[in-house]
Amino acid sequence: MGQSREPNDQDRSGRPASVAQAVAWIDQATCCLPAERVPLDDAVGRVLAADCRADRAMPQHDRAALDGFAVRAQQSIGAGAYNPLTLPAIVVAAGDLLPTEMNAVVPLAAADPEGTGMVALVEPVSPGENVQLRGAVAAAGAALVRSGTRLAARHIGLLAAAGIAEIAAVRQPRVSLLLVGPTASQGLRDSNRPMLRALVRRDGGIIADEVAATRERSTLAAALAAAGGELVLVVGGSGAGPDDHAAAALAEAGELALHGLALHPGETSGFGSLGGTRPVVLLPGAPPACLWSYELFAGRAIRRLGGRDPALPFRSCRVTAARKIISTIGIAEVCPVRLGETAQTIEPLPSFAEIGLGAVAIADGVTIVPAASEGHAQGAEVTIYLFEDHHGLRIGL
Amino acid sequence: MGQSREPNDQDRSGRPASVAQAVAWIDQATCCLPAERVPLDDAVGRVLAADCRADRAMPQHDRAALDGFAVRAQQSIGAGAYNPLTLPAIVVAAGDLLPTEMNAVVPLAAADPEGTGMVALVEPVSPGENVQLRGAVAAAGAALVRSGTRLAARHIGLLAAAGIAEIAAVRQPRVSLLLVGPTASQGLRDSNRPMLRALVRRDGGIIADEVAATRERSTLAAALAAAGGELVLVVGGSGAGPDDHAAAALAEAGELALHGLALHPGETSGFGSLGGTRPVVLLPGAPPACLWSYELFAGRAIRRLGGRDPALPFRSCRVTAARKIISTIGIAEVCPVRLGETAQTIEPLPSFAEIGLGAVAIADGVTIVPAASEGHAQGAEVTIYLFEDHHGLRIGL
Repeated sequence: MGQSREPNDQDRSGRPASVAQAVAWIDQATCCLPAERVPLDDAVGRVLAADCRADRAMPQHDRAALDGFAVRAQQSIGAGAYNPLTLPAIVVAAGDLLPTEMNAVVPLAAADPEGTGMVALVEPVSPGENVQLRGAVAAAGAALVRSGTRLAARHIGLLAAAGIAEIAAVRQPRVSLLLVGPTASQGLRDSNRPMLRALVRRDGGIIADEVAATRERSTLAAALAAAGGELVLVVGGSGAGPDDHAAAALAEAGELALHGLALHPGETSGFGSLGGTRPVVLLPGAPPACLWSYELFAGRAIRRLGGRDPALPFRSCRVTAARKIISTIGIAEVCPVRLGETAQTIEPLPSFAEIGLGAVAIADGVTIVPAASEGHAQGAEVTIYLFEDHHGLRIGL
Repeated sequence: MGQSREPNDQDRSGRPASVAQAVAWIDQATCCLPAERVPLDDAVGRVLAADCRADRAMPQHDRAALDGFAVRAQQSIGAGAYNPLTLPAIVVAAGDLLPTEMNAVVPLAAADPEGTGMVALVEPVSPGENVQLRGAVAAAGAALVRSGTRLAARHIGLLAAAGIAEIAAVRQPRVSLLLVGPTASQGLRDSNRPMLRALVRRDGGIIADEVAATRERSTLAAALAAAGGELVLVVGGSGAGPDDHAAAALAEAGELALHGLALHPGETSGFGSLGGTRPVVLLPGAPPACLWSYELFAGRAIRRLGGRDPALPFRSCRVTAARKIISTIGIAEVCPVRLGETAQTIEPLPSFAEIGLGAVAIADGVTIVPAASEGHAQGAEVTIYLFEDHHGLRIGL
């Protein structure tokens, strides 16, 4: 957290920091938390902190891969439509241990039972056919699922099959929310609290505590000093207005590293730390600015602490701008966009400044216009982040 | 559920049903469940059963869009670098109601305070500049979030801002798991139960009850008759072996509509109903077959009941087969694949028959080769379903 001790060039010059500088600050301030033991039944969605290995060969013995007749392959040599061969066979179900001396399985439909324990075959079978061989799923000691994997249902199935009842998972980051009340004159409904609770949960964090504080600097500084968890989010009071004391309170309780970003929405975001180690993000109180400051910085901190992919948790793709997308030069801008019918093009929508969070209900996603750009020309190829997973093709078998 | 009363052509012919027929059966057997009221705090991930509308204009009054000075725009006409104009101004924070008779906001940095309640401007400002106008987010009565939307954190923020404390959500489907024990000779660890619990939860279902039954037909039929929920999943005992009675038990307790699919893994899947209305899916006991029969059919039923997109919950994309992908003609085959370095090509991996669930830990996704095809030629363009969301591009501002 060296950066939090010496204010950087941006602070000294008074110019706002860039998005890249803020991302770099988050990255140096956060790293993956230590592991904890988690029962497999609660492990879905958790990030493995160590490889899960097979303690023995899987399967441990040769097994039938399907329902059928276990036979000795060498006895079927020469079988044909004009030369059906009758040989000893044992009925097996998929998953059954292969009976001793049998080395292949003939599907039920491919053999005619001939009295007790015998079948007639009209074609030969190879050794190992329809048999899952010892160690085929995994050799003893082999890695089943790698460290860093976020466990999905299918991994749970594999680990359960290996007899693993507990895994080592990255601990979930505990996040403190310090909610600075709106000014009395605003009479606004608090939309940030429920939104942030859902966002923190989506990114694998746990709300450790949630404190509503008044706007006074001393109250905020005291609340900051008392906040728990691995990350503190101060919501509101981050601006330069006479009622805004979040930055000053952080400087008093800990260290303020960056304040003010070349990002819209999100201009008044700030970054610092408590006790030199615990990162604090100052989120603007205006809901769209709170949302994007969370997504780009606070969420990134939570994702890094929890061992997840730190990138925005949206699918990105390259599309063509069907119309010009205008943005202010010198400031990165998050622009709501709507996909065209073929999902190959996008059109700009009214900005977050104009229609606030209303944009998130009508947009398919956003494009982030870099600070150095005045926008995207019509026909330009543009990276967008899609809110929903557009599955695109549907299964059509 | 008409189809469940007259066995169809596939049953009469003894030929296995196609994947398309099974999907069509699921689709006619399931429809979206009725709504229930859900507090907004618990609503993330739920599917809206009705449009959420703004009960009044949002915002209800003109508000400052950023921290600055509220001014009367017409008083700034003629202001310039060589003609600074001093005019009355009131300090406002983002979100503040615009003071009476003021109609624009000048950012803090763009004006010099001149004594109490006055600022000097060096350029004119337009009416409405940096003001969020009454109704800009939503007009009174306008739809904020549409019926059918699965609520994400950002929607929760918008609905909270509108003062909505409770929403109408599609009820979550209740699913009964009827687990048929492995045969005594198998001594297998049960991987299906934990995997299915995670899968049902992922798709928005709730496990209503979970019954472990022995393999006897009469026990199974009794358990089926007693099962609750909107969907019953029987796991195991679906094959044609002497110990497999799931299909017969379903025919006894209700109706068996389809049994046996041209799908690998998943050949022994079955479909039917209880009381003519409650769908039952027979899932094979072999874990890879259980997984794919769930993903393609049982999961689809849960997703449809819960008002979600019924398609496979994986991102699909078109890629090039870098090597030939072999499959048996006459049967659709789920083939594990690995993406090439550029994510433009795929290579086949050992099949589910060969390495069981081991395939899900090494694969990036699957391709489903249709029954009519012998596989994909090298260089063919192929649809794949990706297990994880490959975000592809990273934010790099």
